[in-house]
Amino acid sequence: MKGSPRKRTLTHVDRAGRARVVDVSAKPATARVAVARGEVRMLPATLDLILADRMAKGDVLALAHVAGIMAAKHASDLIPLCHPIALTDVAVRAVPDASRCLVAIEATARSVGPTGVEMEALAAVVGAALTVYDMCKAVDRGMTIENVRLVHKRGGRSGTYRRPGEQP
Amino acid sequence: MKGSPRKRTLTHVDRAGRARVVDVSAKPATARVAVARGEVRMLPATLDLILADRMAKGDVLALAHVAGIMAAKHASDLIPLCHPIALTDVAVRAVPDASRCLVAIEATARSVGPTGVEMEALAAVVGAALTVYDMCKAVDRGMTIENVRLVHKRGGRSGTYRRPGEQP
Amino acid sequence: MKGSPRKRTLTHVDRAGRARVVDVSAKPATARVAVARGEVRMLPATLDLILADRMAKGDVLALAHVAGIMAAKHASDLIPLCHPIALTDVAVRAVPDASRCLVAIEATARSVGPTGVEMEALAAVVGAALTVYDMCKAVDRGMTIENVRLVHKRGGRSGTYRRPGEQP
Amino acid sequence: MKGSPRKRTLTHVDRAGRARVVDVSAKPATARVAVARGEVRMLPATLDLILADRMAKGDVLALAHVAGIMAAKHASDLIPLCHPIALTDVAVRAVPDASRCLVAIEATARSVGPTGVEMEALAAVVGAALTVYDMCKAVDRGMTIENVRLVHKRGGRSGTYRRPGEQP
Amino acid sequence: MKGSPRKRTLTHVDRAGRARVVDVSAKPATARVAVARGEVRMLPATLDLILADRMAKGDVLALAHVAGIMAAKHASDLIPLCHPIALTDVAVRAVPDASRCLVAIEATARSVGPTGVEMEALAAVVGAALTVYDMCKAVDRGMTIENVRLVHKRGGRSGTYRRPGEQP
Amino acid sequence: MKGSPRKRTLTHVDRAGRARVVDVSAKPATARVAVARGEVRMLPATLDLILADRMAKGDVLALAHVAGIMAAKHASDLIPLCHPIALTDVAVRAVPDASRCLVAIEATARSVGPTGVEMEALAAVVGAALTVYDMCKAVDRGMTIENVRLVHKRGGRSGTYRRPGEQP
Repeated sequence: MKGSPRKRTLTHVDRAGRARVVDVSAKPATARVAVARGEVRMLPATLDLILADRMAKGDVLALAHVAGIMAAKHASDLIPLCHPIALTDVAVRAVPDASRCLVAIEATARSVGPTGVEMEALAAVVGAALTVYDMCKAVDRGMTIENVRLVHKRGGRSGTYRRPGEQP
Repeated sequence: MKGSPRKRTLTHVDRAGRARVVDVSAKPATARVAVARGEVRMLPATLDLILADRMAKGDVLALAHVAGIMAAKHASDLIPLCHPIALTDVAVRAVPDASRCLVAIEATARSVGPTGVEMEALAAVVGAALTVYDMCKAVDRGMTIENVRLVHKRGGRSGTYRRPGEQP
Repeated sequence: MKGSPRKRTLTHVDRAGRARVVDVSAKPATARVAVARGEVRMLPATLDLILADRMAKGDVLALAHVAGIMAAKHASDLIPLCHPIALTDVAVRAVPDASRCLVAIEATARSVGPTGVEMEALAAVVGAALTVYDMCKAVDRGMTIENVRLVHKRGGRSGTYRRPGEQP
Repeated sequence: MKGSPRKRTLTHVDRAGRARVVDVSAKPATARVAVARGEVRMLPATLDLILADRMAKGDVLALAHVAGIMAAKHASDLIPLCHPIALTDVAVRAVPDASRCLVAIEATARSVGPTGVEMEALAAVVGAALTVYDMCKAVDRGMTIENVRLVHKRGGRSGTYRRPGEQP
Repeated sequence: MKGSPRKRTLTHVDRAGRARVVDVSAKPATARVAVARGEVRMLPATLDLILADRMAKGDVLALAHVAGIMAAKHASDLIPLCHPIALTDVAVRAVPDASRCLVAIEATARSVGPTGVEMEALAAVVGAALTVYDMCKAVDRGMTIENVRLVHKRGGRSGTYRRPGEQP
Repeated sequence: MKGSPRKRTLTHVDRAGRARVVDVSAKPATARVAVARGEVRMLPATLDLILADRMAKGDVLALAHVAGIMAAKHASDLIPLCHPIALTDVAVRAVPDASRCLVAIEATARSVGPTGVEMEALAAVVGAALTVYDMCKAVDRGMTIENVRLVHKRGGRSGTYRRPGEQP
């Protein structure tokens, strides 16, 4: 009887039981790198305060940078099915771009292991972007976090990815 | 002598010493609410797999939802100058929009206290968006996290903010 | 058309969107207390080693105790929809019971706030029990964690609960 | 003088100094797997609500599942002497059993390294069980977490363990 | 019989059962402040590199500052019997002192609640000091963290403490 | 034009962009060990209470010990540019020294990997020292954490370090 509680239940159980961390036990450890980028778009006056290092809460870019590194290290806490990874490198750059009224963020993550580090690079961008927002929100609540994307990744069975149209 | 080490040093120290968590010790506890939104843009085929609940890692929307709630609770870990807050409510919705090829995420955070909960709502959106990316990345590395923004906040001395052009 | 993708999708979305932290913003802060209990059942020889404080990894009961307190403080990290709480008290006791071949664990949590502390007390019992297992597993892999239950709770709208048949 | 403070002190110090994380620096990395199980026992009416996916806080089984995975990843935070481990796999299943009035939980953890993953599998069961309790507690405070045990482990010097009487 | 296992056991159990978080449930919420200080002593050449902002890992003082704030927020994770606290303010200053060959660190923590914030201020000093060590260790492994102490605290039943001989 | 905003900006950006986790992707995994020490100096009466195990919050040395181990495991959370490490061993000893009125703390950390474990050993000393302070502060607010230093490290390209004048 297709609409019966029993049938719905079985489907329900199957669905819940299906989700899982991908088993990488048998994958070899290879060198991994991932680069992600994103932007925080803001008012010109907000960017001017950052450029002049006059934001009341402190040095926006330095803080964004540290926050990005910390977020990369905590990617597996933030993302339920993300493997814990022993990162061997994280680098974050937050660069103001006055002509486009934004802070451009780029993060690079590296590891030697069985899983990719795309999520670590993306988490770094997002952690840095949230921190830019936090430090400037008193003067500009309308900022947006834009265009967070994977730019490049290398290593592992799925090979190399390079997003079309991105500068190296 | 303007380029001397001493002078640079003093500036340097002052700058480092300036950053701080905003002191809210004397602010009254008031009811706070913040709503944030964002999108994960993807290929039509990716969205179809989500809609059919056929993504290999599991139920994308359910996982995104939990990840958003967890991220809101950890906002002060992610964001260096963000106060730790006893949230009284977090709600996250991740809704596929087939016509625009994206998953729309909305998060609401509430607290009763001396500080706003904007960062908690934004962290929830971003945690949910990263999780959507993680669960779908095997089939679509080109997804982007877009337009993460504060939609509404209420409570506290700075009063109510409502982003122009947003639906309630 | 009942089996269509669209219909399944709507159900799916609704379900995902329904889960949430309970909104306690409007609840008054009241004094809360919860007591939980559980047992770790083991071989007589295992308990003897604990009683003689001769387990190779160290003082089992002292470690279990600390682990319980830490677990109570991290209950909202462990449990997705659990509110973060400013606990005002946590006490954990781990008492060997030679006649029943087990270590009995009791945890008490207290707070003054809008939400109960049952999950904090249960998390403490479970954290202590896992630690007993960890410290003794080299000599007894067959241990079981048993009968983890809420014994008592007080405060809040749902009032007082006292589990039948428990000693105070 | 046997009851003197000095003598008690020495004993005391020795005891405190004895506890330690087991040194695994010289152990080879081998493939590890551990399976743990446990149950959450409840009222028939509670199980019915789970089966019908009508629990007010959301989809109990999906949430339990995620919570189990997160708990496995945080085992070394929960358990003081547990080594931090780069898990390569975690899978959690939470399956309602109407005839026995319980939700049965099974977790599998895998790693390639010098230490076992028993604690990660047990932590996953316990994290999932606490989450079932949390999501259903409004309707059933009398639930109990029962029979949390190691079912199977493989890898490392101590070899394979299989708990008698368990189904594969 | 004084050396018997039973007697030792009882003492052992009592001791284990005695440790606890101090119950502050009945204490009123009052304004709290604590100030702590400490120093990182180093070679003159190390301090010169910091002053010139030429340490290879980055801006030592800015990083120390952020690390101190994060450590204050995580004091209850680091210190087993420390209550989780909703800090309302944390400020950290790390100031090089060329004449004494050290970086002097000062942290201020504030909260409105039933418990003091001494541990948060001390954790901030120590987190900042560890970070100074980390960023400079490639050039100076002999650095020492010195004289970490509470300088001032106010609020709560135990009243005001002011360490003799400290500058305000 | 040397004082122009543009020029300051570039310097500012460069500085922010320079800080980074050291890339260890290409370093071989070698056996690492680090030993750190430090002291908590206190009043004679405070030390007497510890020696008699009569401190109201519990067994000071046992708690310090656990806190040290936990802090070593969380070193990369505390210290922004510290790599996450799979520690293979942590041992902490906290030994009262009545003649010098202090508790002497020693921590040893071990790992097999591309990075040193100095920060883990130092974090352990500092975590244990903070815990001694926390457990005794009700009777002695004037305690100081002193002379936290690296005593020995081995492994990796920079080879062996042994601090002059330290006992093995």
